[in-house]
Amino acid sequence: MTLFEKHKPIVDKAVAALHERTFFAAYPEHPAPAIYGETADADGQQKFKSSLNNKFEDLLQQDPSGWAGQEESPYLQEPLKISYPTFTVSILMHRATKAFHEWRKVGVESRAGILVESLERMKKRFFEIAYATMHTTGQGYMMAFQASGPHAADRALEAIAAGYEELQRFPSRAVWDKPMGKFNIQLNKEWRAVPKGVAVVIGCSTFPTWNSVPGLYASLITGNSVIVKPHPGAILPMAIVVAEIQKVLAENNLDPNICQLAVDTFDKMITKELAEHPDVKVIDFTGNSAFGSYLEALPGKAVFTEKTGVNSVILDSVDDVDKVAANLAFALSLYSGQMCTAPQNFYIPEQGITSSAGVVSFDAFAQKLVDNINGLVDNPKAGPFVLGAVQNKKTCDRVKEAESIGGKVWLKSRTFENPMFKNARVSTPVVVEVNAKDKQVFSKELFGPIALLIKTKNTSESIALAQELARAHGAISCGAYTTNAAMKDEIADAMAMAATPVSFNLVGGIYMNQNAAFSDFHVTGGNPSGNASFTNPEYVTKRFTWVGHREPVKG
Amino acid sequence: MTLFEKHKPIVDKAVAALHERTFFAAYPEHPAPAIYGETADADGQQKFKSSLNNKFEDLLQQDPSGWAGQEESPYLQEPLKISYPTFTVSILMHRATKAFHEWRKVGVESRAGILVESLERMKKRFFEIAYATMHTTGQGYMMAFQASGPHAADRALEAIAAGYEELQRFPSRAVWDKPMGKFNIQLNKEWRAVPKGVAVVIGCSTFPTWNSVPGLYASLITGNSVIVKPHPGAILPMAIVVAEIQKVLAENNLDPNICQLAVDTFDKMITKELAEHPDVKVIDFTGNSAFGSYLEALPGKAVFTEKTGVNSVILDSVDDVDKVAANLAFALSLYSGQMCTAPQNFYIPEQGITSSAGVVSFDAFAQKLVDNINGLVDNPKAGPFVLGAVQNKKTCDRVKEAESIGGKVWLKSRTFENPMFKNARVSTPVVVEVNAKDKQVFSKELFGPIALLIKTKNTSESIALAQELARAHGAISCGAYTTNAAMKDEIADAMAMAATPVSFNLVGGIYMNQNAAFSDFHVTGGNPSGNASFTNPEYVTKRFTWVGHREPVKG
Repeated sequence: MTLFEKHKPIVDKAVAALHERTFFAAYPEHPAPAIYGETADADGQQKFKSSLNNKFEDLLQQDPSGWAGQEESPYLQEPLKISYPTFTVSILMHRATKAFHEWRKVGVESRAGILVESLERMKKRFFEIAYATMHTTGQGYMMAFQASGPHAADRALEAIAAGYEELQRFPSRAVWDKPMGKFNIQLNKEWRAVPKGVAVVIGCSTFPTWNSVPGLYASLITGNSVIVKPHPGAILPMAIVVAEIQKVLAENNLDPNICQLAVDTFDKMITKELAEHPDVKVIDFTGNSAFGSYLEALPGKAVFTEKTGVNSVILDSVDDVDKVAANLAFALSLYSGQMCTAPQNFYIPEQGITSSAGVVSFDAFAQKLVDNINGLVDNPKAGPFVLGAVQNKKTCDRVKEAESIGGKVWLKSRTFENPMFKNARVSTPVVVEVNAKDKQVFSKELFGPIALLIKTKNTSESIALAQELARAHGAISCGAYTTNAAMKDEIADAMAMAATPVSFNLVGGIYMNQNAAFSDFHVTGGNPSGNASFTNPEYVTKRFTWVGHREPVKG
Repeated sequence: MTLFEKHKPIVDKAVAALHERTFFAAYPEHPAPAIYGETADADGQQKFKSSLNNKFEDLLQQDPSGWAGQEESPYLQEPLKISYPTFTVSILMHRATKAFHEWRKVGVESRAGILVESLERMKKRFFEIAYATMHTTGQGYMMAFQASGPHAADRALEAIAAGYEELQRFPSRAVWDKPMGKFNIQLNKEWRAVPKGVAVVIGCSTFPTWNSVPGLYASLITGNSVIVKPHPGAILPMAIVVAEIQKVLAENNLDPNICQLAVDTFDKMITKELAEHPDVKVIDFTGNSAFGSYLEALPGKAVFTEKTGVNSVILDSVDDVDKVAANLAFALSLYSGQMCTAPQNFYIPEQGITSSAGVVSFDAFAQKLVDNINGLVDNPKAGPFVLGAVQNKKTCDRVKEAESIGGKVWLKSRTFENPMFKNARVSTPVVVEVNAKDKQVFSKELFGPIALLIKTKNTSESIALAQELARAHGAISCGAYTTNAAMKDEIADAMAMAATPVSFNLVGGIYMNQNAAFSDFHVTGGNPSGNASFTNPEYVTKRFTWVGHREPVKG
């Protein structure tokens, strides 16, 4: 049984799910012993611990030029002291180019089989990846497990399925038979999906696998060789993924350099050298807008970016204001606002929010939000796990600076004690009131747990501002609360025109931050927050070229 | 019966044809009286003649700021003296933006019905368009009819079908039902294909409708409003198409400014002002590489280009060398080499070409090509109709200059008499021998009937050069002649890697210049000759954005 035969059922299901867009998940998101095994968690933690202070020797890349690694744990505020093999760009490119010509000749079914198999291997290391993610990103345990493990694997499977479908969209051969009156012209035609070449995936420090595996697997399924360049602050999670891919490649007598890890250090980043290399034809990037826009402007390359945006919440009318405040307090606090989908700008009409229990004034809503944040932070069974730790010290600085942004400070940022990690770098949400006139204050992304409560004349002004900012500065998510059907249509249309998905009236255990594989298009591609849409057809079709040859049928 | 109901059968057939890629044509390419009516040709010619020296008043665009037109006939070398309404960019953009918000709310089925209906109206004017094309581009009658009429309409239908399919690729609604253990999270989700905004189609002087209608119809079917900016030297063919679209829009109570014609003059071109306008989000362009690359670099726009390339013919081995020489002489002479798909660089091994009748030396093949060109040019029943006239005087200059390019001149360019148009601007093919070492001579496009016979060491060098030039300078077509299966595979692979379609061993009435709708991807998008591939999924998907909204199911 080939790997493709083994995995065809799940690939077929995934292709169907891409079209249906109802709930689908191949990898269970609960880190339950019943699913993953009684000792899986402890084993994974042990495996993570044993990698500390050591060389990472799991990769199949030969003859490193050196060893390096500068990760540190936001929970311990100590270096992990893991070192990874390093390679010059010239060696990486030489190997990638050689491997490309091997990989491009592997059929799409074999590629799909190998890639799904690598996800099955990754699954066996979900817990290890979870601890690696916690101690590089600062994510809480549950998010680290889900986002870096099953959710990332589902996103990868989605990319495999999308590529598998697109590569078979047109026939490989057909006879073209044109009647010319007295005779026919007959041509044998054939079409090839030609991969672009070498692809580079540039990772970020907050979601090292979730944001990297879609592009990685999309480039691989379409026949490109890939160099994974993780953020120097969050290498280990992707090192494990790349190691597993390499092992499956080697087991199938393929060059493991089809997928290489390219580690660099903060003092000597190799990202630009890689990106600008003329043989690099595809780039995936998650990170800041300036660098993303520089990459997008590189000529002759297919570039997929997830940059930054200004995410809005439009508050018009609600059923139960307390449920709304609780939902938004959680959305804002989750991983201390270090999500590209976290809300930042809360537009509230000056006359307040209509609710089933009467009008809730601007101030009353602000106080409810503050109370809910405090309640969450101060709940020792929830706060530390929901907020996690802060990846980058600069985020803490930004949160502090937000207090002097110029409006009433409804809630100051503070610290709290994490019972498991006394030394964790933490920062609770800051809530500041801003007038709608002070647009310069709120028309940029303030990454971290920063909530701006913007007092508008009415919901129409709220919508106009949310749309304007999304168009000018990008937006990846939007929350909206309205019980008025006409208002809902207006918001849906206005934000659709700004290519921003809207989560309406979320309460309970679902948050605007969350995007599901096989259903939500993450980063639509229609505003400046980026052009990578997981996973619409373009996300794979731009990674290869359809080329057709033809020849007369022999008479 | 709605227009969609009326035209659904042809749309469905076209969608199926897109996938099958066997022969399909909705519009008959033969200008036969039995098909188009006994008086259709004479009526069309009369209609064309009556438009000369007159205002073109067929458009539904109100209150022009002026009237202008500088077309001249390459057959008569006289101005047509047709004037068209002109508008400022600010008026064009104002109307396009207003019309956009009307058009984007029209459902895809209604859009498809309206657009197919406009093609049916265009069909009634195929002969008029043919004469308009002859007297702006210099194409021969048959090409002018086929390329600007039925073939263009088929390309437009192909774009409609591709858009129709892609816009329905994902469901408009679905319930997302996620099991959470003790309860389910249920969300109503909906997805919208949001058009990008205002689109601009920039036409060329040689194929005014064939190269413009695919982008025009692709932008329209996906809900964008379109401004058509024809080349100032070839306005009339597209003016007729735009007028017919406007009439169908108006009949359906829609703003005719959904599709506007934007005429300019050589001394005051408005192309850059239009292209750089921040509200222009989609651009289609056919023309020179410098301008195309400038457009591609404009940030925040979806840009589709057909630029220039260096098309090769690789000669290795043949069955019947005379048939090959005849086919290539025709391919080179057709419309005097003014096709983006015309051959330019003929790579011939110094030891000659293997044939079933023995080796044909380099010189012998060169002479056969020359003899076939002369035979064609001097055949009064074929030459004038195949070669047509030369659109731009600069092309005649370039052909003359080619004689002093530095190698042996096998055939000088000359004139011939066109029996119908004594004053036609004509130029027959020039054939020059070049050494493979003189790469600077043949590594650029020499637009017009210019054949360079490049003497290579062997076919491997021929392939390497053809691939290198296609990758560096672009290529839209490639011809190859080989009877060796291994060599064929090598050429197919090498040129596929340069994203260049290869026509193998063409003899008889089919030429490498010809690309068929619903089967051949014209301009693959994988080399510098352009990024528009008629019609692969990207050709339509980049013109809109998938945006999904969601809301909890009411309990």
